Amino acid sequence: MAYFTSRPENGRHFLQIPGPTNVPDRVLRALDNPTMDHRGPDFGVLGKRVLDKIKPVFGTTGPVVIYPASGTGAWEAALVNTLSPGDTVLMCETGWFAHLWREMAERLALKPRLLETDWRRAADVPAIEAALRADKGHEIKAVCVVHNETSTGCTSRIDEVRRAMDAAGHPALLLVDTISSLGSIEYRHDEWRVDVTVSGSQKGLMLPPGLSFNAVSEKALKASETAKLPRAFWDWKPMLAANATGYFPYTPATNMLYALDTALDMLAEEGLPNVFARHDRHAEATRRAVRAWGLEVQCAEPRHYSSALTAVRLPEGHSANALRAAILERFDMSLGNGLGRLNDRVFRIGHLGAFNDLSLLGTLGGVEMGLRVAGVPHQPGGVGAAMDYLSGNA
Amino acid sequence: MAYFTSRPENGRHFLQIPGPTNVPDRVLRALDNPTMDHRGPDFGVLGKRVLDKIKPVFGTTGPVVIYPASGTGAWEAALVNTLSPGDTVLMCETGWFAHLWREMAERLALKPRLLETDWRRAADVPAIEAALRADKGHEIKAVCVVHNETSTGCTSRIDEVRRAMDAAGHPALLLVDTISSLGSIEYRHDEWRVDVTVSGSQKGLMLPPGLSFNAVSEKALKASETAKLPRAFWDWKPMLAANATGYFPYTPATNMLYALDTALDMLAEEGLPNVFARHDRHAEATRRAVRAWGLEVQCAEPRHYSSALTAVRLPEGHSANALRAAILERFDMSLGNGLGRLNDRVFRIGHLGAFNDLSLLGTLGGVEMGLRVAGVPHQPGGVGAAMDYLSGNA
Amino acid sequence: MAYFTSRPENGRHFLQIPGPTNVPDRVLRALDNPTMDHRGPDFGVLGKRVLDKIKPVFGTTGPVVIYPASGTGAWEAALVNTLSPGDTVLMCETGWFAHLWREMAERLALKPRLLETDWRRAADVPAIEAALRADKGHEIKAVCVVHNETSTGCTSRIDEVRRAMDAAGHPALLLVDTISSLGSIEYRHDEWRVDVTVSGSQKGLMLPPGLSFNAVSEKALKASETAKLPRAFWDWKPMLAANATGYFPYTPATNMLYALDTALDMLAEEGLPNVFARHDRHAEATRRAVRAWGLEVQCAEPRHYSSALTAVRLPEGHSANALRAAILERFDMSLGNGLGRLNDRVFRIGHLGAFNDLSLLGTLGGVEMGLRVAGVPHQPGGVGAAMDYLSGNA
Amino acid sequence: MAYFTSRPENGRHFLQIPGPTNVPDRVLRALDNPTMDHRGPDFGVLGKRVLDKIKPVFGTTGPVVIYPASGTGAWEAALVNTLSPGDTVLMCETGWFAHLWREMAERLALKPRLLETDWRRAADVPAIEAALRADKGHEIKAVCVVHNETSTGCTSRIDEVRRAMDAAGHPALLLVDTISSLGSIEYRHDEWRVDVTVSGSQKGLMLPPGLSFNAVSEKALKASETAKLPRAFWDWKPMLAANATGYFPYTPATNMLYALDTALDMLAEEGLPNVFARHDRHAEATRRAVRAWGLEVQCAEPRHYSSALTAVRLPEGHSANALRAAILERFDMSLGNGLGRLNDRVFRIGHLGAFNDLSLLGTLGGVEMGLRVAGVPHQPGGVGAAMDYLSGNA
Repeated sequence: MAYFTSRPENGRHFLQIPGPTNVPDRVLRALDNPTMDHRGPDFGVLGKRVLDKIKPVFGTTGPVVIYPASGTGAWEAALVNTLSPGDTVLMCETGWFAHLWREMAERLALKPRLLETDWRRAADVPAIEAALRADKGHEIKAVCVVHNETSTGCTSRIDEVRRAMDAAGHPALLLVDTISSLGSIEYRHDEWRVDVTVSGSQKGLMLPPGLSFNAVSEKALKASETAKLPRAFWDWKPMLAANATGYFPYTPATNMLYALDTALDMLAEEGLPNVFARHDRHAEATRRAVRAWGLEVQCAEPRHYSSALTAVRLPEGHSANALRAAILERFDMSLGNGLGRLNDRVFRIGHLGAFNDLSLLGTLGGVEMGLRVAGVPHQPGGVGAAMDYLSGNA
Repeated sequence: MAYFTSRPENGRHFLQIPGPTNVPDRVLRALDNPTMDHRGPDFGVLGKRVLDKIKPVFGTTGPVVIYPASGTGAWEAALVNTLSPGDTVLMCETGWFAHLWREMAERLALKPRLLETDWRRAADVPAIEAALRADKGHEIKAVCVVHNETSTGCTSRIDEVRRAMDAAGHPALLLVDTISSLGSIEYRHDEWRVDVTVSGSQKGLMLPPGLSFNAVSEKALKASETAKLPRAFWDWKPMLAANATGYFPYTPATNMLYALDTALDMLAEEGLPNVFARHDRHAEATRRAVRAWGLEVQCAEPRHYSSALTAVRLPEGHSANALRAAILERFDMSLGNGLGRLNDRVFRIGHLGAFNDLSLLGTLGGVEMGLRVAGVPHQPGGVGAAMDYLSGNA
Repeated sequence: MAYFTSRPENGRHFLQIPGPTNVPDRVLRALDNPTMDHRGPDFGVLGKRVLDKIKPVFGTTGPVVIYPASGTGAWEAALVNTLSPGDTVLMCETGWFAHLWREMAERLALKPRLLETDWRRAADVPAIEAALRADKGHEIKAVCVVHNETSTGCTSRIDEVRRAMDAAGHPALLLVDTISSLGSIEYRHDEWRVDVTVSGSQKGLMLPPGLSFNAVSEKALKASETAKLPRAFWDWKPMLAANATGYFPYTPATNMLYALDTALDMLAEEGLPNVFARHDRHAEATRRAVRAWGLEVQCAEPRHYSSALTAVRLPEGHSANALRAAILERFDMSLGNGLGRLNDRVFRIGHLGAFNDLSLLGTLGGVEMGLRVAGVPHQPGGVGAAMDYLSGNA
Repeated sequence: MAYFTSRPENGRHFLQIPGPTNVPDRVLRALDNPTMDHRGPDFGVLGKRVLDKIKPVFGTTGPVVIYPASGTGAWEAALVNTLSPGDTVLMCETGWFAHLWREMAERLALKPRLLETDWRRAADVPAIEAALRADKGHEIKAVCVVHNETSTGCTSRIDEVRRAMDAAGHPALLLVDTISSLGSIEYRHDEWRVDVTVSGSQKGLMLPPGLSFNAVSEKALKASETAKLPRAFWDWKPMLAANATGYFPYTPATNMLYALDTALDMLAEEGLPNVFARHDRHAEATRRAVRAWGLEVQCAEPRHYSSALTAVRLPEGHSANALRAAILERFDMSLGNGLGRLNDRVFRIGHLGAFNDLSLLGTLGGVEMGLRVAGVPHQPGGVGAAMDYLSGNA
């Protein structure tokens, strides 16, 4: 028996949930370096380097705040730094994570105004525009969108959201959660004039969970000067002041910064456009497999297909959780569960982070064999369809 | 040049700041295990195990909340879960960290009432008692004490604080920061009826920074039901609900939990009383060295001597920072700097966490040679005095 | 770019040569523990434990000598400890490795008598029996057989060889190379009365290369008393003397022993019969894939099929090396090359060591896509055939 | 309890035997990288790089053969590649390791002619010259010298040996063991016209045991063409042929080559002259401590003092082994034992490899406290003497 798991150890576990993703050996070997003095001269060099290298991943030349906390914290940071108690926020409830963010907003004394979807598509841009146009008094202080909704595999078009906001001539801030898209799906904080981009370490950045991020626009910084939600740990101001010399106002997660430094090098070495193309390719191969099985992708809108994960719907009367349990038991693979209203209705295949063609084939093979073993009606040939695509398109 | 430092690599760096401490190889090798599915069946086993094993370290049988965030966050958690805007808190400003906690309270819309010291002793228990007795209307909702003030090397007597509160018959909560004492200096959350004990991973627990803790009393839990400070990430309620089965409401810092699991085993194997005795012994050896050098320990009250670190005062006209820089440059050792009003006036020797006699001799030898190299007036013989003590007292 | 490779790092390299195999994370984390004093009291405990735990893997209760050297050295050890200059040895040239062992015998002044095969089957047992019967004068001092011929994927029947030797009533020693079978294919040193079993660390034992082994019978030990080939480093005698207390006569490969200790635990936890069944199952799935592709397995004799690797023949006019290069380039998988006369004619798929169903599917998928990309005539459906087998037979 | 030791884990073990030495974290983190295909294109790049980078450490521009075997094997390689059965070799028995090498020569059918010492000084150069002058018939085929005799802490002057051989006009080969000196004490294979330099990984090269080396002169290569000792594993010829493209004739110890690659970078970054000066300085500090204790250094000839280790004589009637056991038990430090005739008479302090001033002070402090605890008559002040030297001479 291994130390942290009862899984068999005859070969690598396939961790194909849509995050945390498979952390590369190179990153794990950075992570386990001896912890250093976070006030000493060497740390400042590391701090500066990491704070600089993270910027292009967000598509920004502005500041990125790094929290020694997991991703949920960065949601909170985005809200408390920019808003005041009672502020109205327009939230697009595209799935479970958007739902959780909305719940958080309520707990923090904000007033979410909801734009719902059927959880089979991404944020409804015309609805956003309509809501903003209707808000003559500019009560809405922020529009909150989850870029890649990890519960459904739908990716919102932030460029279109931006255009809609511009078209409406509305001054609200634009806050975007990229926790499961950053480093996997193209993203342009500056070009799309996002005000706060929230992200986390454990998905496309290929790190364990434990770091989270806020990329911050000038406009957001300005908003933070008057925002009245109480804040201390999440406060940008002392962060940015200390970051100027590569340090942090309180103890940073040193070893995670080693890992981040390394992961950022890996992304830069591969080249972000190549990273995104690799994710697109694996997503398309996965969808072809799903279709070959005769199953349905949860995302019903091709323009919203996620390149980070694919949620797959089970035929009526079949349990996605039973399927996942069978696959874990027999093939040592973890898949994502259905969340909220999708519980037991879908399973989710993560194909993001450090991932390659053969691992994808193993993953899809595990699903295909699992469908058989669990007695879920399907056609064989999913892996074959993926191979056709991948070998024509490497 | 190493990857994360420009220090020479001919031998191990001596990281003798009072935390982060030297992370043992065994813990680093746990940390770098592959990240697992935090929703899968194996995780629950790990989660339960860690949540159980951490309790005796706090001296509690009640719940301990584990945050995927560094220690400063656990300060915030203690406050926002138990208090409401405008609440008065009695804070003992024993040094820099107590000062920072007070600043945080202010930012969170609390009203700190200060009990100051000269930063050469721990919390003033009679003053606490007096303040509570004077507070007939029970405006004070909480008494906040830093157990081990890392900036001065003074350890407050929480048992006495408890008795003073009882004597005053005051219902305030007792919130205690043990970030730099937990796992190093004896601590009894239940016996001393502490309401929230705040702690962090990177000191006596021998982990990198990135986890923090709240041990929570029944009374604190009850207070949290009516506390009105907005909270989401730090909220105990969903934490405790999910913890019941070994899970967490949002993504935990999986790899840090591996490391914690391992570090808790190490503490249990050595035995907490042995761990505390080891720290006491190294602290006494260090003070004997300081006295032999003719220098002064910052803590002026022997009953308050810290077993985790020793702050040493420099003679007038000499720079502690210059001394530290010389020691880093010539002997590859990091020492703690003076904080706040003690900047450049003291240096701090951390002798906590994974540490042994010979590493202490190397540490004290580095200080003694540094004093010479930096031209700080002193008597030789500090290392000799430490050896006398340690070899008579192993 | 990674440190030790120019391969892309977007996902794990598939190391599917027939050894070195994929070293499990748990073994790598044992390997990198701090080196200890090989003369100190702790070492003896480790040494004894490893020397004991290795025995069942060989199917012996007798001594197993562990060399701090790679496998080729253990070939030499088997010869120099038991034979004298000019001795005749009967060698079964079943492939490239048997050929190399024969070359070594010649360099060491032995006189090999060859029994050749067409490299498509294992050792010719009737021929062995005939040769021994013909050797009335008992000139043949040893019969040398490679259990699993790594160059062809043919496994010799050592039980039958033993019976043939018994039937011939010949006193020769039986020396068997299990470098690529130990821990993957059932093996019984004692039951089959093998005199020296040679093995190495980097295949079924799941370690990096750097350790090798001789399991030694009473008869072999007795032979070593009169054997006249000069020997020092390989000499069993001082090894066995020092091993009695868990030590070694010269510096052992300490960190490799840590890794071995861990790998032996893993084999014991899974259970050797389960380990062998897993290998058999993966081998059968692989052969079904090969047949589905319309290609030919190099091993022409089903009774000799190897459960550790499968060598696959390319159609005339197609280059196995070009195929392997394409697969490495496009799909980041290393496959074994054809050796000696099989160069460019076959490629070899390693399916041994730490390996599981989904990794096998990835491997076979990489081959199937590679055949397509490289323009090798074949039928699709190999992965499908493997899935049919594996999902019916998990 | 840790996995591989029963030692306490409250701080780092001090491994101060004269090898294996403390392996740096950076090297351990290279060692545990995934094993690669030793026949693939990436391996050749690594192989070439390592084979090139090792040369300056030997002070040669000629070939260095790297064996996947521990150091004793490289002794055997030096002999079997250059000599024939019955050849006379002149061997300088300067201590236990020279003694073992002589025993090996005998087992390999060579005829050692001995030049003994009292084990308190290095090789007797005038005696070498006299023996060679007397050997009119040039029966002596090789002169074998241990550069740094690890059992006594005496370093032979290879430059003087060379001059003596030249003065005698004798054509014998010069074979030198640098196992415990390479990378610690200046060495010049080419300039001193050494024919075979033998070395190992686990001392100044800062690796675990498991690799060994032969640096080979033109003259030695020529000798190998006619040398008649049987050889296969150790044979230079196929090694050098394969090395030309960065490969090896049989499976190399891949992970140890990763570690070597990294360790060679570390030596190059520090600069070999600085590495040697660091060792000289630590050795001088150690001898000053020994003298301050009133004890005697085993090496009686200052010109022969070793910079890699210091052997210390115990006063009559006192047991070095009891002292070592007490130090291990109470202070968690491993020291070298006395070997052969020096058993229980000396203990040996290793101060080589990855080592720095503060670790040396911890080491010497452990010895000084151990002398006290074990009741060995001595003066205190050894650590103080070392500090005086080190702080005046950093």
